[in-house]
Amino acid sequence: MHSVSGSTNMRVRLPVLAISLQVLMLVLYGVFVRYDPSADAKYEKNDTVWETNEFYLRYSTFQDVHVMVFVGFGFLMTFLKFYGYSSVAFNLLVAALGLQWAVLIQGFLHQDEHHKGVIYVGIMSMINADFCSAAVLISFGAVLGKTSPVQLLIMAIVEETIFAINEHIAINVLQVNDAGGSMVIHVFGAYFGLMVSRILYREGLRDGHSSECATYHSDIFAMIGTLYLWLFWPSFNSAIALKGDDQMRAVINTYFSLAACVLATYAASSLLDHHGRLDMVHIQNATLAGGVAVGTCADMMLSPFGAMILGTLAGFISTAGYKFLSPVLASKLNVQDTCGVHNLHGIPGLIAAVAGALVAAMASEETYGKSLYLTFPQLIPSNKEDPAFHALHGEFNFIKPGRGRSPAKQGAFQIAELGVTLAMALAGGAITGFILRLPWWGQPSDPNCFSDHLYWELPEDSKEDDEAETRQHTVLQMKGGENNS
Amino acid sequence: MHSVSGSTNMRVRLPVLAISLQVLMLVLYGVFVRYDPSADAKYEKNDTVWETNEFYLRYSTFQDVHVMVFVGFGFLMTFLKFYGYSSVAFNLLVAALGLQWAVLIQGFLHQDEHHKGVIYVGIMSMINADFCSAAVLISFGAVLGKTSPVQLLIMAIVEETIFAINEHIAINVLQVNDAGGSMVIHVFGAYFGLMVSRILYREGLRDGHSSECATYHSDIFAMIGTLYLWLFWPSFNSAIALKGDDQMRAVINTYFSLAACVLATYAASSLLDHHGRLDMVHIQNATLAGGVAVGTCADMMLSPFGAMILGTLAGFISTAGYKFLSPVLASKLNVQDTCGVHNLHGIPGLIAAVAGALVAAMASEETYGKSLYLTFPQLIPSNKEDPAFHALHGEFNFIKPGRGRSPAKQGAFQIAELGVTLAMALAGGAITGFILRLPWWGQPSDPNCFSDHLYWELPEDSKEDDEAETRQHTVLQMKGGENNS
Amino acid sequence: MHSVSGSTNMRVRLPVLAISLQVLMLVLYGVFVRYDPSADAKYEKNDTVWETNEFYLRYSTFQDVHVMVFVGFGFLMTFLKFYGYSSVAFNLLVAALGLQWAVLIQGFLHQDEHHKGVIYVGIMSMINADFCSAAVLISFGAVLGKTSPVQLLIMAIVEETIFAINEHIAINVLQVNDAGGSMVIHVFGAYFGLMVSRILYREGLRDGHSSECATYHSDIFAMIGTLYLWLFWPSFNSAIALKGDDQMRAVINTYFSLAACVLATYAASSLLDHHGRLDMVHIQNATLAGGVAVGTCADMMLSPFGAMILGTLAGFISTAGYKFLSPVLASKLNVQDTCGVHNLHGIPGLIAAVAGALVAAMASEETYGKSLYLTFPQLIPSNKEDPAFHALHGEFNFIKPGRGRSPAKQGAFQIAELGVTLAMALAGGAITGFILRLPWWGQPSDPNCFSDHLYWELPEDSKEDDEAETRQHTVLQMKGGENNS
Repeated sequence: MHSVSGSTNMRVRLPVLAISLQVLMLVLYGVFVRYDPSADAKYEKNDTVWETNEFYLRYSTFQDVHVMVFVGFGFLMTFLKFYGYSSVAFNLLVAALGLQWAVLIQGFLHQDEHHKGVIYVGIMSMINADFCSAAVLISFGAVLGKTSPVQLLIMAIVEETIFAINEHIAINVLQVNDAGGSMVIHVFGAYFGLMVSRILYREGLRDGHSSECATYHSDIFAMIGTLYLWLFWPSFNSAIALKGDDQMRAVINTYFSLAACVLATYAASSLLDHHGRLDMVHIQNATLAGGVAVGTCADMMLSPFGAMILGTLAGFISTAGYKFLSPVLASKLNVQDTCGVHNLHGIPGLIAAVAGALVAAMASEETYGKSLYLTFPQLIPSNKEDPAFHALHGEFNFIKPGRGRSPAKQGAFQIAELGVTLAMALAGGAITGFILRLPWWGQPSDPNCFSDHLYWELPEDSKEDDEAETRQHTVLQMKGGENNS
Repeated sequence: MHSVSGSTNMRVRLPVLAISLQVLMLVLYGVFVRYDPSADAKYEKNDTVWETNEFYLRYSTFQDVHVMVFVGFGFLMTFLKFYGYSSVAFNLLVAALGLQWAVLIQGFLHQDEHHKGVIYVGIMSMINADFCSAAVLISFGAVLGKTSPVQLLIMAIVEETIFAINEHIAINVLQVNDAGGSMVIHVFGAYFGLMVSRILYREGLRDGHSSECATYHSDIFAMIGTLYLWLFWPSFNSAIALKGDDQMRAVINTYFSLAACVLATYAASSLLDHHGRLDMVHIQNATLAGGVAVGTCADMMLSPFGAMILGTLAGFISTAGYKFLSPVLASKLNVQDTCGVHNLHGIPGLIAAVAGALVAAMASEETYGKSLYLTFPQLIPSNKEDPAFHALHGEFNFIKPGRGRSPAKQGAFQIAELGVTLAMALAGGAITGFILRLPWWGQPSDPNCFSDHLYWELPEDSKEDDEAETRQHTVLQMKGGENNS
Repeated sequence: MHSVSGSTNMRVRLPVLAISLQVLMLVLYGVFVRYDPSADAKYEKNDTVWETNEFYLRYSTFQDVHVMVFVGFGFLMTFLKFYGYSSVAFNLLVAALGLQWAVLIQGFLHQDEHHKGVIYVGIMSMINADFCSAAVLISFGAVLGKTSPVQLLIMAIVEETIFAINEHIAINVLQVNDAGGSMVIHVFGAYFGLMVSRILYREGLRDGHSSECATYHSDIFAMIGTLYLWLFWPSFNSAIALKGDDQMRAVINTYFSLAACVLATYAASSLLDHHGRLDMVHIQNATLAGGVAVGTCADMMLSPFGAMILGTLAGFISTAGYKFLSPVLASKLNVQDTCGVHNLHGIPGLIAAVAGALVAAMASEETYGKSLYLTFPQLIPSNKEDPAFHALHGEFNFIKPGRGRSPAKQGAFQIAELGVTLAMALAGGAITGFILRLPWWGQPSDPNCFSDHLYWELPEDSKEDDEAETRQHTVLQMKGGENNS
């Protein structure tokens, strides 16, 4: 029958792929992964000198990020009326694979030079793995409802690999600051997903799909996602910041940016409707744009005022994007962006990158004191013999030579990383899109999009509604086809 | 048409007000707000001596409070079947404005005498801003479903201003203890909201409204709010307590008070129904009364036993309030209290105030040791030359002269603050009510109350239900009018 | 009438029992319970030396556990279409009583020998009380929908008493390690509940009940429970572990075990369906089995690889259990297990116990260094004069003589505790089952099972659906009876 045709049957594909990947993970973890000294019983000091154990400094922040990745992203996507199971459960599946693979691929690229071939896991690797998975979940938002779980698992593996390379360039090659990952996570995830969606373009959905909408309660479920993302975004942007004032500043800046963003979003949403009514899509998404927009410079001396400017701007632009830009992207550029990730992660991420470059370029000892060289280690003189280095080393005996950049130069490098991120995201998304177009991955047909019934045993009540909708869409499409011919 | 008549159209009002307020915030933040030293890069010590950084002591507690304010209050109000969008989303809007304004107004009133004209933001200001917003959200509960978002924004600005003055009196003038803010937040927010609701009294809702009820799933959504409030209330009551044993005690007392309150609520709810059935309204709300009732004395040496007595009492009284008092308030005093905030915040807050006064009056060195003067700095001798002060200063070299009050006198001051709080709440609520009655704020007409359709673009399914209900109510009202005439 | 016949009317029973129990708690708390020194104002050092205050180390972890117990377990059980109120609200009721009783009964059994007759409450007692309540909630899952709240309160009191005795044997007599309580909490709670369910066997539900199923939205509500359990399980397994590396290791092991478990569950669920469709029951439950399976050895040097092996195994076995074992248990052994706790807590708990014994038996100084004797204090020589003890005491001056066990012997003791746990759970469950069969507790009749309408005032919409379903089931049953005769 129409719903489970041979080409989309998951019975062999999904188990074989999931088991193969999990076995691969097991082998690689067995060979390479070990506990970080903070978690290894052999290092006895970590029992008693717990104050220096990062665990107690970062664990509650990690859990906030963890909630964002699984509850936040998962429930944000439950707004679709017949795709709630898939939204929240494929999110879990993709992230559970994603974090395992991220620990490996990030570990390979950031190996300690003294311990080649060993990947140490501790609280920082768990946070970074969650971050890396978040990028894939952003891309998932662009293709939501149009891909099989098999396609999503493949996308996770490919995307995270390219993500880690770009992250490596950002941290170790170009050496840029991006505390909340607005470039590395949000810009990357958004443009990667948009490009995948472009390659997987469906002519049959040009006029929409009758299931691509919300019900009253599905919209309220989505607000659970929104609120947890909104509340814990200060933890996201501060999770890997330097401890002390940098981390605190990242929290404060994000808190105020998000608060300002809410007012801007409500104002814009009402303004853009003929009757002044609010649109749930805007409230669910654009209220979060402030968290993205402040991400790159969250730990810098941006000032609460600066944070609120960014949040206000992001709220307006993101809302306007949902109203005006998304339809154009779909009709002119053939980019079908289910969740509007371009408006929530893409554009606000660009704003963040530019803001980060500007704030970095304006950094000075006057504002930061000597902490300037802790927040921006790239400004530390590169020569150990340099008297300026000596003076700094007298103050902070743990520092190492840096790049000797000027703040302005650092700003330029920040922009360079934005370019690299965009290039890698678009190229990576294109490659991934072509891989996903191979006919083996059980991609749903157009009428079956945005519907759980392909992949789930459904309760009686929804089964009927859902299949009726699919049949209706099939009929509409056929009629549409007739009209067009 | 009926639903978006000119008088309630938000298209101009809401954007203009929201943008004006946000611009005002931007200007004031630009001029006055700066990072607290704990978040300012210039203060280098905060990098290394992180142990003394309040951030690591209070951030996870702050996040619990943050969840309570946005998820707890927001979802608690989603019980109404056609007002779920507005409940959760207006809660977000009001709180996002509220916290920005709270930082300013609380900052102005608690300025450091050495740094006039500067407001420093750190973790404590964020917690206090969330607290201040909570008071507005309590008031929101009283007028839920009967006010436009424009009215709510205005209420937030006026209420927080009066809140901060009352808080200033409590902390700096009368110098009372109120760890969980049961007087300053709960009593204030409840009676303020009740007075606003009284002034906005609607004759047309005297016999109820067909939309003022729950559906099966909306009640379960509301339980999300209930549970997060219940779980994190120990964090709420301990968030600004002194670090160390005071904070721990506030957690323990609240934990046990809430547990006892649950049993009392279920017992009372079943007892008060003819068939012994439980009422979701009681479970959603009265189970939380124990958190309010223990709030003022949460950090005092109340004993777990004392906490459980308060919780049990609060559960019974709050449940009985929903059953017997609310209908009387509505019919006799014309106070229409949608969420029953009088039973959840009002009466339990009065219990808290009296309990706090009693426990303070019974405080002694025998029970507290010398810590008595840390928990109650008002008892420290006021004269630096006093030998008793000298002895204390030898023990705690950071203390400053106090008021030299006796514990009994402190108890009297606690009661005085209750009186001040009630007076300011009722007067403030009356003023606000009259402001909100001005015809410019798009207040919904009676038939349009408790309905999202005025303010939201709704999905197809709910639009029909919702509008049918509104039409039905209009007809019923007209008939009622005919009958009355 | 059918729905509230005399025998199930709660009006007298529930209030009388709840009030009696709460008064009993009040008396016992008044007599026995005092603040732990960390929360007692008299102990002045806890103000200033806060770094050593367990509160700041464990409070955020406690809150994670707290969320699991009330939101996690509560919402996980909301999957039933007509039993959502009861699931989430009876969970709250039972846990609120449970934690009060647990503090008492655990306190009596673990008294400080110098302070007989006094129970001190602090952060550790709150965590342990939540743990103890969790066992009851697991048992609740087995009898979900078939018991009155009065029966559940009685079960809580009896079960926790036996729980505490078994826990006492585990900690003080057999001295085993069980960081995440996979034996003491999960195996105990599961087999206790299964035995209760066996004794309460209902012939009338042999062919199922038309209300024992989910709706589309009830399944999404249940995913809220699943996700919070999944996310915070690392906190559960580490909450009472030694501070430092032990706690960190418990987090890491649980994180990876759960991630691997997700992939195994999805693979198995798809594989076991004819059309390769996923089953929400598996996703909601079996994805969590990895948290149980790694619980006993979570703080040991298991390695991330070992954790992932356990998680993968648990995911497969748990999913297969839902598919194949649960129907057999019901039809052959007359064990009707509503939530399938045997598959989520029972079997994975057995895996955990065996894995814990094996990993303990393989522990060595080579792997753990001298920390071996901190993680396994049972291996410390029992004789103070032993030179090996002297050497250890030189390293860790706080240690006391242990049992002088070899690692292999410790492994044997671990298995012995599994046997004790199973025996006490089955015997305790049988006793409890017979108590609950007494005709006074208002147990619902077969047609009224899985339905809120007996215990709740319901909104109009659901009342009709629910009662129609009950009538239908009554008719079906009567017909079934005719056919059988």
